[in-house]
Amino acid sequence: MPELRKDPVISRWVIISTERSKRPSDFRKEKEEQKEVFCPFCPGNEGQTPPEIFAIRPHNSAPNSQGWELRVIPNKFPALGVDGQLNRRGEGIYDMMSGVGAHEVIIETPKHGESLADLSLPHIQQVFSAFKNRILDLRNDIRLKYTLIFKNHGAAAGASLAHSHSQLIATPILPKRIVEELSGARNYFKFKERCIFCDIIHQELKDGVRVVFDNDLFIALAPYAPRFPFETWILPKEHHSHFELINEEGLQHLALTLKILLQKINAALQFPAYNFVIHTSPVQEAPLSHYHWHIEFMPG
Amino acid sequence: MPELRKDPVISRWVIISTERSKRPSDFRKEKEEQKEVFCPFCPGNEGQTPPEIFAIRPHNSAPNSQGWELRVIPNKFPALGVDGQLNRRGEGIYDMMSGVGAHEVIIETPKHGESLADLSLPHIQQVFSAFKNRILDLRNDIRLKYTLIFKNHGAAAGASLAHSHSQLIATPILPKRIVEELSGARNYFKFKERCIFCDIIHQELKDGVRVVFDNDLFIALAPYAPRFPFETWILPKEHHSHFELINEEGLQHLALTLKILLQKINAALQFPAYNFVIHTSPVQEAPLSHYHWHIEFMPG
Repeated sequence: MPELRKDPVISRWVIISTERSKRPSDFRKEKEEQKEVFCPFCPGNEGQTPPEIFAIRPHNSAPNSQGWELRVIPNKFPALGVDGQLNRRGEGIYDMMSGVGAHEVIIETPKHGESLADLSLPHIQQVFSAFKNRILDLRNDIRLKYTLIFKNHGAAAGASLAHSHSQLIATPILPKRIVEELSGARNYFKFKERCIFCDIIHQELKDGVRVVFDNDLFIALAPYAPRFPFETWILPKEHHSHFELINEEGLQHLALTLKILLQKINAALQFPAYNFVIHTSPVQEAPLSHYHWHIEFMPG
Repeated sequence: MPELRKDPVISRWVIISTERSKRPSDFRKEKEEQKEVFCPFCPGNEGQTPPEIFAIRPHNSAPNSQGWELRVIPNKFPALGVDGQLNRRGEGIYDMMSGVGAHEVIIETPKHGESLADLSLPHIQQVFSAFKNRILDLRNDIRLKYTLIFKNHGAAAGASLAHSHSQLIATPILPKRIVEELSGARNYFKFKERCIFCDIIHQELKDGVRVVFDNDLFIALAPYAPRFPFETWILPKEHHSHFELINEEGLQHLALTLKILLQKINAALQFPAYNFVIHTSPVQEAPLSHYHWHIEFMPG
């Protein structure tokens, strides 16, 4: 069983894996040039993955049969395990807890060569809808504090399988970066009684310098202090703290926003590898006035 | 002139470069296979680098002439510039300051193919001695708060030139990671009235599980909550907050410690790329009871 361990100096939790070193992809460097490898995410190979948790498929079709448009499955080599007690204990000055959580894979499309940018708008909307659906389900497990949703696209960005997919890791701890954002945003709110992200959006729309594009519901902007060239954030213009509370209209606009961003990035950088991460509020929290969910997108 | 910009949410300063995109190495991906490229760090090419700031060379030999064992030069494409005022200002909700600082390169050996692990113990000691010497000089500039010393070894770890070298960046801000360590260590000290790193060393020496090796003055250990496989920290066993206050005996033992670590890592991982960073206290601070300098070493 994996373990969660806390760095005693900077309080960052890390997952210490016991299983993932067995992943076949750990040897993939030598195999990278092979093209026609077996893909467990392709239709017809449903039996080669753990049973699906969620799928978008024709009514009356059986789970784990062909014909689906999107599948969510447990990661075969999970960073965290669903079973077991959330056992917290000390080891001298150190703190650990058992690695309870969930690690799921969202297979975005049945077509092997299709990328997220290639999908139709309704299909991208379904991807975001699957994210929402999974969070709403997982938050019923009150051991879980956070659901981290991310996508690694391209081998250079760490994707170990080429078939387009994203991942969800639900954890009994808050990721350090989220703790920092919540804390920074809370301090700002105490001082100004306004959400810092709302203020950023307001200033950027006024200045116009760092706005990549916007629509009625979303803005895509280059952050003031980026870590990477072409780093881009997508934020809802209205204040919302939890991604999973997005409505259908929001999902529709979000799909459009991501599609346009991918098209612009692909045009500018010739189809780069990339990562994105959804930054949202802890799932067990009521809506927060000081935090504003958003997506951070980084070409690799 | 480069700029320092602060992320308004998590208070992380980043350097926004205006010059570094001109570096020839930005195109090196296509050139990686070329072997016999011109090396500005090799003897005979001293005129191709900015004039040296410090060198270990025979008495009576002229600066920037051949015959040296180690040279420190300004980075030709510096992330920060030495000249100019430390101009702090706001841009609406954002905070910035001019990119005042220093960016230096420590050329560790005149021999092109020689790696840090190949150097004799007295030569490695000279490398650490050069780090110390540069910090003691730079801290006289009271605009500078921190000196970050790091080494990227191997193209996979980000080294843009193959000739063995390390780098120093002196900044008017504290790196976020250092702020976090200082804050975590200060909180622990408030609670326990002991240095957390001293407590880690004490517990690790007692347990013996994560000690890679140790000698009279230093310990090399696998941190409890590592981010990377084979991540290793080197700490002085005695409490010292500032690397630059190390004495000759300390430098001698540190050279030995790093050499053994590199030998062990090279044997275990077949000469991997790696990074290391010296974590030390802010240069303008008096010795601190709660912080303990150390080196964090990560194979790539």
